[in-house]
Amino acid sequence: MASSLEFDMFPLVVALPVQWGDQDAFGHVNNTVPIRWFESARIAYLEQSHLLPQLEREKLGPILAAVNCNYRRQINYPDTVRIGACITRTGQSSFTMVHQVWSEAQQAVAAEGESAVVIFDYAAQRPVRMSDAIRALITRFENGRV
Amino acid sequence: MASSLEFDMFPLVVALPVQWGDQDAFGHVNNTVPIRWFESARIAYLEQSHLLPQLEREKLGPILAAVNCNYRRQINYPDTVRIGACITRTGQSSFTMVHQVWSEAQQAVAAEGESAVVIFDYAAQRPVRMSDAIRALITRFENGRV
Amino acid sequence: MASSLEFDMFPLVVALPVQWGDQDAFGHVNNTVPIRWFESARIAYLEQSHLLPQLEREKLGPILAAVNCNYRRQINYPDTVRIGACITRTGQSSFTMVHQVWSEAQQAVAAEGESAVVIFDYAAQRPVRMSDAIRALITRFENGRV
Amino acid sequence: MASSLEFDMFPLVVALPVQWGDQDAFGHVNNTVPIRWFESARIAYLEQSHLLPQLEREKLGPILAAVNCNYRRQINYPDTVRIGACITRTGQSSFTMVHQVWSEAQQAVAAEGESAVVIFDYAAQRPVRMSDAIRALITRFENGRV
Repeated sequence: MASSLEFDMFPLVVALPVQWGDQDAFGHVNNTVPIRWFESARIAYLEQSHLLPQLEREKLGPILAAVNCNYRRQINYPDTVRIGACITRTGQSSFTMVHQVWSEAQQAVAAEGESAVVIFDYAAQRPVRMSDAIRALITRFENGRV
Repeated sequence: MASSLEFDMFPLVVALPVQWGDQDAFGHVNNTVPIRWFESARIAYLEQSHLLPQLEREKLGPILAAVNCNYRRQINYPDTVRIGACITRTGQSSFTMVHQVWSEAQQAVAAEGESAVVIFDYAAQRPVRMSDAIRALITRFENGRV
Repeated sequence: MASSLEFDMFPLVVALPVQWGDQDAFGHVNNTVPIRWFESARIAYLEQSHLLPQLEREKLGPILAAVNCNYRRQINYPDTVRIGACITRTGQSSFTMVHQVWSEAQQAVAAEGESAVVIFDYAAQRPVRMSDAIRALITRFENGRV
Repeated sequence: MASSLEFDMFPLVVALPVQWGDQDAFGHVNNTVPIRWFESARIAYLEQSHLLPQLEREKLGPILAAVNCNYRRQINYPDTVRIGACITRTGQSSFTMVHQVWSEAQQAVAAEGESAVVIFDYAAQRPVRMSDAIRALITRFENGRV
């Protein structure tokens, strides 16, 4: 299991308080909420890495093709989660982002998963090949690991 | 790609209208919404197959261990989706449910994915072996396919 | 209390199934959900009365200035709600819409409230005077009552 | 309009980041989201004032009877909101809580409203008279203003 130390190695981490209303009738955080947290980390990654403004210059946008999530521990209110995101693989017109949700209250990874993000031409409604500029921004933000 | 006919072969199908507010700032249905639809179909399956009352008799409940979703088409308001669910595999203390989201407006599968559901003793906070009664209910609802 | 008969006098009624995940840790439908249902009825009203295309022709849009909701009964899954909407008052640049949520399971009004909607110029970021065309569409959809 | 200074006079203030997915197809925070923020501030107030454990000792719970919200400014991602809550009036079996949402990005009140909360016997399904202990906790948390 990842320690808090390993967790801090993600190039992007956002902290979010669990809201009471994130819980469902089972009395724990609903399964859709970590998927929302993944999204929040994904958008923050795209902004802080400057991928989003670069995509806009190319008149493109990101589109989510797939997501998966493993729910490792039940999360309850009150708690604060830290959500880490990193890109682990790039393809011709897509990349894979890994997400981890760290529960401060439990000092443990509570959920983890992956997103498949496609570089998309919304006007033409089709995927497009990733530009060298996009690829370079990813490599820089990931410190050369990708 | 599944046709509408194949779609009707799911033992459980629920119909849900897309709400305007299901859309996000990209102007299409947000990625968390199909995950919510999967949940709605999953709960309906557990009720209509009588799995939920049987679990309660055994003082157990279902817990979601993992979910994945492939987003095949952008979904927009207005539309009605039909969400199919079937169990395709049972393990010692878990089962796999397949979900498909059919868009009436597009006459196509717009999203599909799987859930891993664990038979859980909430009091003891641990998974338990699936009883023969649970297994028989699944087999009956799936017409002997599982 | 409104009967089902009175309820059908709303010029716009939408039916929505309660989803299991609409419930919170109190085990009943969360207070934000009727506000979402109001929105769904509001948008459907704007479309079916042709207000929305007329606003677009005038390069305007609706903006919600205020909402209130009285929660009369706890709502539980499973249920289907019907949400009625009518415009009861028009001002210089705004109108008041009344919403009622009818629970099929309880055969009773479960929630009711009002929205204040402003005719808004999103480009100039300011309210604008309601045109005669908008006013006429409201009067027609309300059968001359407003 | 309230200044940031006045804002800090609320006995309870919670800070929450705006999430990208809080935005709807109009490109600003959806109208249901401030209602969720009100709830988060309301629950935090009930906990930090010790009202919630006292209600539990009396085998009672809070139930929301009504809510209203005035949307003063459009809120966009990214931003952080601070939500203030105070009780301004107590009745025989209920109290009124005022909520204000301060936008850090705009340095202004973006939304404000009220909740009517009833002291409720969930077992008997009826409101009950507020005990002296509850009343004293409110007075103490409000520094004698209520």
